[in-house]
Amino acid sequence: MATDQLSLTFSALSDPTRRAILHRLAGGQATVSEIARPFDMTLAAVSKHLRVLEGAGLVSRGKDAQYRPARLDARPLAAASEWIGDYARFWEANLDALDAYLNVLQQLTPSATDKEKPHD
Amino acid sequence: MATDQLSLTFSALSDPTRRAILHRLAGGQATVSEIARPFDMTLAAVSKHLRVLEGAGLVSRGKDAQYRPARLDARPLAAASEWIGDYARFWEANLDALDAYLNVLQQLTPSATDKEKPHD
Repeated sequence: MATDQLSLTFSALSDPTRRAILHRLAGGQATVSEIARPFDMTLAAVSKHLRVLEGAGLVSRGKDAQYRPARLDARPLAAASEWIGDYARFWEANLDALDAYLNVLQQLTPSATDKEKPHD
Repeated sequence: MATDQLSLTFSALSDPTRRAILHRLAGGQATVSEIARPFDMTLAAVSKHLRVLEGAGLVSRGKDAQYRPARLDARPLAAASEWIGDYARFWEANLDALDAYLNVLQQLTPSATDKEKPHD
């Protein structure tokens, strides 16, 4: 079981519904039933996702016993962003290499525009 | 089961050993046994982590049947970084609020230095 904060953060983000819930909460706090509405999900399923997000510190819940509105807490994302950012030079290198390769291909292949006869 | 690319990426990153393997590969390609050495892990365990990383497109393997060196492919991290980056204004707001709170506390509490008598 992952217990370090970074693993908890990435694990919480590894589900499209949980990412959609965070997106919803970025627009303002919401109760479980407000969150459930657009997702066509049971309240129990939403609550389960919220518990995962809460466990990762990405969501905090209000104290009102009945509604306990959920709020986004984006702070753990700062460390996740920093971790990934350390690899930016690698994906930039990968993408530069792809660009260079596509440029070579383009120079070797006469472009569609050159070959195309104008329609009249 | 998560099958979208972003979920696969975050899921692959949600394990400290897999993040350490990516860190190792950022230093250059390596075989399974070279990766295993500093981790005190079985080759089977390393291979299993490599398959997860490969499934997420974060690692590619050489064609040499015997060694199949693993190489970092950081491109999927670009999208993950972009997703998280959309939340930067939220964690900055959270951290600013924390800063402001700490500043208020500091103004309300006489600092330790002010109260401390010099030892002589």
